[in-house]
Amino acid sequence: IAKEVAKLLEMKAQLAGDEVKHKFVLKTPKGTRDYGPKQMAIRERVFSAIITCFKRHGAEVIDTPVFELKETLTGKYGEDSKLIYDLKDQGGELLSLRYDLTVPFARYLAMNKITNIKRYHIAKVYRRDNPAMTRGRYREFYQCDFDIAGQFDPMIPDAECLKIVHEILSDLQLGDFLIKVNDRRILDGMFAVCGVPDSKFRTICSSVDKLDKIPWEEVRSEMVGEKGLSPEAADRIGEYVQLHGGLDLIERLLQDLKLSQNKLAKEGLEDMKLLFGYLTLFGITGKISFDLSLARGLDYYTGVIFEAVLQQQENDHVEEPVSVGSVAGGGRYDGLVGMFDPRGRKVPCVGVSIGIERIFSILEQRGEASEEKIRTTETQVLVASAQKKLLEERLKLISELWDAGIKAEVLYKKNPKLLNQLQYCEDTGIPLVAIVGEQELKEGVVKLRVVATREEVNVRRESLVEEIRMRTSQ
Amino acid sequence: IAKEVAKLLEMKAQLAGDEVKHKFVLKTPKGTRDYGPKQMAIRERVFSAIITCFKRHGAEVIDTPVFELKETLTGKYGEDSKLIYDLKDQGGELLSLRYDLTVPFARYLAMNKITNIKRYHIAKVYRRDNPAMTRGRYREFYQCDFDIAGQFDPMIPDAECLKIVHEILSDLQLGDFLIKVNDRRILDGMFAVCGVPDSKFRTICSSVDKLDKIPWEEVRSEMVGEKGLSPEAADRIGEYVQLHGGLDLIERLLQDLKLSQNKLAKEGLEDMKLLFGYLTLFGITGKISFDLSLARGLDYYTGVIFEAVLQQQENDHVEEPVSVGSVAGGGRYDGLVGMFDPRGRKVPCVGVSIGIERIFSILEQRGEASEEKIRTTETQVLVASAQKKLLEERLKLISELWDAGIKAEVLYKKNPKLLNQLQYCEDTGIPLVAIVGEQELKEGVVKLRVVATREEVNVRRESLVEEIRMRTSQ
Repeated sequence: IAKEVAKLLEMKAQLAGDEVKHKFVLKTPKGTRDYGPKQMAIRERVFSAIITCFKRHGAEVIDTPVFELKETLTGKYGEDSKLIYDLKDQGGELLSLRYDLTVPFARYLAMNKITNIKRYHIAKVYRRDNPAMTRGRYREFYQCDFDIAGQFDPMIPDAECLKIVHEILSDLQLGDFLIKVNDRRILDGMFAVCGVPDSKFRTICSSVDKLDKIPWEEVRSEMVGEKGLSPEAADRIGEYVQLHGGLDLIERLLQDLKLSQNKLAKEGLEDMKLLFGYLTLFGITGKISFDLSLARGLDYYTGVIFEAVLQQQENDHVEEPVSVGSVAGGGRYDGLVGMFDPRGRKVPCVGVSIGIERIFSILEQRGEASEEKIRTTETQVLVASAQKKLLEERLKLISELWDAGIKAEVLYKKNPKLLNQLQYCEDTGIPLVAIVGEQELKEGVVKLRVVATREEVNVRRESLVEEIRMRTSQ
Repeated sequence: IAKEVAKLLEMKAQLAGDEVKHKFVLKTPKGTRDYGPKQMAIRERVFSAIITCFKRHGAEVIDTPVFELKETLTGKYGEDSKLIYDLKDQGGELLSLRYDLTVPFARYLAMNKITNIKRYHIAKVYRRDNPAMTRGRYREFYQCDFDIAGQFDPMIPDAECLKIVHEILSDLQLGDFLIKVNDRRILDGMFAVCGVPDSKFRTICSSVDKLDKIPWEEVRSEMVGEKGLSPEAADRIGEYVQLHGGLDLIERLLQDLKLSQNKLAKEGLEDMKLLFGYLTLFGITGKISFDLSLARGLDYYTGVIFEAVLQQQENDHVEEPVSVGSVAGGGRYDGLVGMFDPRGRKVPCVGVSIGIERIFSILEQRGEASEEKIRTTETQVLVASAQKKLLEERLKLISELWDAGIKAEVLYKKNPKLLNQLQYCEDTGIPLVAIVGEQELKEGVVKLRVVATREEVNVRRESLVEEIRMRTSQ
């Protein structure tokens, strides 16, 4: 009986094993993706353009852990807090994956008592949002942040952040773009003069933030229906949030009888005027729009806010330019560091975050459409042989090349066919082949073949490194 | 009364608030750290050396998500599985943070049906281990992995992995190092001839793995006491694991009456001989030791395994070189991809992982000791003014410089003192100052000052970019 029981148990275990095997799905978690060599080639090109810009503006770089104490993130993101990934309680501290790079930056400043820094940080952040992967919206995605912390004269760092967005979007040649600018103080002042109660400012701000995705009528009904705002207040907001323009609009609102009476709104408008002055010096006002409908979802902004959107291309035969999505955003958050400081000491900050995943999506689609061949390695030369039994000679030669800093590969076969070795160069874009053979070894030379032209020359072994360097430096 | 109650409730809320504020600890999670600009400068230098080496060997690059489906990691890490970080079940899939880059790589290969790739991957991994941060052991740490997947002739890719470790550790100039090599087949054969039952192979292997940290006597008592191995078998193992050497030892063991009778051990020894042949061609056997005590903790290895350790420096006045810790490791894992493939198709793989945190720790400590000043920005020029009311002129000039690709900064003050501007250059290592003044503006020139020598020259505004480029290109 014992034997039979053991047998049955074994069968059961096997069945369970089979079931597990059967149910196992080979995939990445929802909302995430792998990057293969081709995608990485695009990604590194974009990172390089962005980092070059950040360094051009004198930024240092920092890094922080991928998770923070849960309480570090608590109360920073308003309605979006539900999207934070928590780690399982496995004993010890309660942790959450970072939701952005701004809150960890503020924690870093407070913890190290830094009152003055210009830094960038490029890293992945995590949001349990509904993914829309074809449009570049993921649950794990990169943010590229540049921030300026410190007590400075008004609007100078803010203007530099907008200049940076302008430089990066111009460099990447993504097509026409527009940078919308507003100020939380103008929004709050506007809410006040429209008759929104103080306690509803943040939630009404969240509603306004949806105006780039849904029409005013729906936003209005959310304000009145869900959030209990009076229809009159909503209609007054409706009039303001339709406005966008430049210096002329700022001047007009400074004359607006209601708005100019509000202290916050007036401050915001005066600073907006100053900002537009600096942007004129930078020569970038052509792509900037002061837009009263821009609200930004996050709780921590206190001053200027902005968001860059790509415009539909002209050759898409659409009459009016339609925005196809946000690719950068940011603003001023003067209170965030103080929330972490035990004595509440404030460090004013302003920063920008480049939404790189949308940019990848666009460039990836463009790359697929153009069928341009992207090299995924930098190999300069393949060490090959035409005859058999030369593996040892190939290994000796490639070792010399590696030690001289040449990027070289060899096929991992004892006796590969020459044709296969040449085909490998064609497939991967390796420009040169160094061929060893009995005859060449005797003569102390290596046959160097140019893959594109099939030209072959014998090069003395001691000159080979120099010859490869010369032929692969453009 | 209602008023009093409201007052009391308010006081209570405030007290609770104070308490929360009081309890809040400003820190990074246990076992993690921030990297400030100085640490990042060191880190980027190390990454650059490693990436240069990986590219020299023709590697492509990939990236995978920071978390995987929990079941993807299940059953891959043996006794170490308890160290995996799980995410909280917030509805949806069960996720875990990656424990290494090897399992995600194997998942990537199986999922995309890739049978042939040479790739590197540099990313953070997560282990709920006991941190020892001064010695560079963290719960969040970088791994730099290089792997070769594909069906090739034996030991050629394995030899290249060892060459890569040798190149990187030589490049980084960390001091003397030794690469220990062994083979899981030799270990398993050894266990068999020593009388270890099949079912105990993996757990006895884990014990052997501790020999670099604790003495043989303790390992032996773990084998016999905790793991129920016979004292005779343990003693037989004890004799083998003391052995280390080169080709001579391989030859001796191939003659060993017991070991050479075991099919697995014989295969492993024959391949080890082949490997040493290739390493001789690469000229690196001087730093390689065939070491029967090397076991490696992970379950998935199937062939060659290796680990690089730094040796105590000679000038530390220690007679025998003592290993001060592992800085790289890896091996062959021919079965891992097959565990993910629905039909169990195998893709042989071999790879190396550079343990970069220990390397950082060493270089960081060295940097602090030497007091060498590390620049954390690349700024070429500060745009300054000696007189007041020139903010607009400074902004106009810096905008021109940025647009021409010059790395430039400006102080965010309306009227900064020249002395403060010069001091900023001294502090941050900016080599040049471009000074605008009323007189210079009239004459169409900019005064260019070399910070180190205090030399000043007037440069025509249209030549300024060229002049800065020339003076900052070494």
